[in-house]
Amino acid sequence: MPDRARRPDPAVVEREIARLRATGLSKWTTYPGAIGSFIAEADFGTAPAVTRVVREHAERGDFGYPARHHRQELARAARDWFADRYDWHVDEASVGIVPDVLASLRFAIAHLTRPGSAVVVPTPNYMPFLRLPADLGRRVVQVPGHRGDDGRWQLDLDGIGRALDDGAGLVVLTNPANPTGTVHTRDELRALAALVERHDARVWADEVHAPIRYDGAVHVPFASLSETTARHTVTATSASKAWNIPGLKAAQTIFTNPDDLDAWHGVGLWTEHETSLLGMTASTAAYREGGAWLDDLVARLAHLRDVLVERVTERIPAARIDRPQATYLAWLDLRDIVGDRRLGPFLRRHANLAATDGRYCGDAFTGYLRLNIATPEPIAVETVDRLADALDTLPGRAD
Amino acid sequence: MPDRARRPDPAVVEREIARLRATGLSKWTTYPGAIGSFIAEADFGTAPAVTRVVREHAERGDFGYPARHHRQELARAARDWFADRYDWHVDEASVGIVPDVLASLRFAIAHLTRPGSAVVVPTPNYMPFLRLPADLGRRVVQVPGHRGDDGRWQLDLDGIGRALDDGAGLVVLTNPANPTGTVHTRDELRALAALVERHDARVWADEVHAPIRYDGAVHVPFASLSETTARHTVTATSASKAWNIPGLKAAQTIFTNPDDLDAWHGVGLWTEHETSLLGMTASTAAYREGGAWLDDLVARLAHLRDVLVERVTERIPAARIDRPQATYLAWLDLRDIVGDRRLGPFLRRHANLAATDGRYCGDAFTGYLRLNIATPEPIAVETVDRLADALDTLPGRAD
Repeated sequence: MPDRARRPDPAVVEREIARLRATGLSKWTTYPGAIGSFIAEADFGTAPAVTRVVREHAERGDFGYPARHHRQELARAARDWFADRYDWHVDEASVGIVPDVLASLRFAIAHLTRPGSAVVVPTPNYMPFLRLPADLGRRVVQVPGHRGDDGRWQLDLDGIGRALDDGAGLVVLTNPANPTGTVHTRDELRALAALVERHDARVWADEVHAPIRYDGAVHVPFASLSETTARHTVTATSASKAWNIPGLKAAQTIFTNPDDLDAWHGVGLWTEHETSLLGMTASTAAYREGGAWLDDLVARLAHLRDVLVERVTERIPAARIDRPQATYLAWLDLRDIVGDRRLGPFLRRHANLAATDGRYCGDAFTGYLRLNIATPEPIAVETVDRLADALDTLPGRAD
Repeated sequence: MPDRARRPDPAVVEREIARLRATGLSKWTTYPGAIGSFIAEADFGTAPAVTRVVREHAERGDFGYPARHHRQELARAARDWFADRYDWHVDEASVGIVPDVLASLRFAIAHLTRPGSAVVVPTPNYMPFLRLPADLGRRVVQVPGHRGDDGRWQLDLDGIGRALDDGAGLVVLTNPANPTGTVHTRDELRALAALVERHDARVWADEVHAPIRYDGAVHVPFASLSETTARHTVTATSASKAWNIPGLKAAQTIFTNPDDLDAWHGVGLWTEHETSLLGMTASTAAYREGGAWLDDLVARLAHLRDVLVERVTERIPAARIDRPQATYLAWLDLRDIVGDRRLGPFLRRHANLAATDGRYCGDAFTGYLRLNIATPEPIAVETVDRLADALDTLPGRAD
């Protein structure tokens, strides 16, 4: 019998859900009434500096074209953030501005890889990375990773090597990893770099979750490993995840290969042109003035992570879950319970819970589930309880 | 001797420029100290409904991913605007959301034209349209138009026909025309449609300036001409120009060919994903609630247009300028004064005026100049006076 005494007061849960739905966030309005756990938005607003900047635009009536100085200020703020937080030192001129990391990936595939070459996507991974290459006429080679004994997910370097042997031109590295929350160590990254270098291939490194790390985990930018690695890497990052502003549409691509930067200046500036003004100025404010707010957020998320992991352990003992080292995502292995059932529709119907079916993170991950832990504690607990209750209804699981 | 008695008070001009620079608009901050007339931004802010929506996002802390309902609401608001203002009736589902019209053009070229086919750009035209096709590996065929006896610029249909004979696959129609302000009549558009149809080619119609028309000029959406025309056309428009919100990054692509819509659903949705949330909600508010504000703006712009045209006629009699039927741009033929001089750098240096050299609107238009009339009256007058004074300094023009 689960510990129902500690279950959150339903009135509190409903009040919190109603309050969050009123924010208008996609997370709470896409599946009305359900707990929204399917999208990487946080329920804690954004830094006051970001809100202030947006209000100032409204006061000045300035919603015009971004100017050169807006781009420069964002490039400088990002550069300084990398230096301060990751000890990574890049030139301001190497920071390109894009609407989001997908625009960065699109540019990298279209302009920086061998024509027609396949794209290696280690799985599980962020869902759109599995689909976008096909829209550019490129094949995706999914290479499932494995969970190490330490509960951290690892890349399958042999599998990646085979894909590169077969002619793949680009490896999509997501570090910290979405959805597993692994923060790759310097040694792990070096092994990938050596492999890629041997194959004369490229790495596109998505480091958008890097600001959200726990327990002192150190973020090593892939391109910072060595001069050689810098040359085969294109890095994408953004303030969107840490400061909860994905709808403002601004991200950064860091070009650590001078030829890539030339290609960007030749054809990439149209993509820069699609970045919103408020995305640029809000991101600048986030990097410049949002550090303390972020540190408080990360402390809060670390607590919520512990709450959610403990609740899963208690209520769903047959599930496997590890504490993520980074991101506000949790990755549950429910295969022992659900087999190869489609989890997404089942949970929307039977748990009033909208979460990400693992198979969207990779073909090999049916029976896994991605949850979002960046939500008030009663909802985090209720999320697990609804999941547990729905799983209990499955045939063969009656108590 | 020019009429210096009516020249605006320099203190008023400087105060206005300082006030506008404080808005942060690109127009006033890119060339500090200069009069900004080089970019299609207006100096009159935006509709209160737009500002309110942005403030509400800040209050709710909602800068999250756009949701389905945000896209739907914008599609419906745009559809209703087309019906109310242009008597053009399209299905909500045919309205795709994109960051800006360039993203729409990029999609049209990449996915809706014959691979490798050239792009016809009638000139003079909006500067980026001349450059973007090349970045997709496509050749641009510039087809210069001509000024009719009525002072309205016309397409060179024979020239466009020759380009289509040579295999070009797409015609870029800008209507109302930027920079000439011509509003094409139904008969003029029908002639283009017949030509394109004969060649089995496509039209991408940029109608972003349609809300800003004067003297009762009627906007005929190109795709509304006939079922046949609808099928060979893709239309792009946006609230960005009329409501002065280009930095919020939202535009619409209207697919009136079902196959195009299928292609969009297949690969275009990544582009939709790059559109900002605030761009969507602000544009929805503009279309739904911004009509009266826009009507007042257009009345104000009509007056400023007359002021500027009269001042040019008075101060620079050797220039040729016509009253635009639409847009807040003015198109000056200064060839009799400047010959083939590069106007842009000359005017920045000698007139403290940043304006668009006509050659950026087309190779045939050296000696032309594009000005922006959406500025307070003292600045509009001062713009012409600075231009006139600088032209007076040219060799052979001493009074």
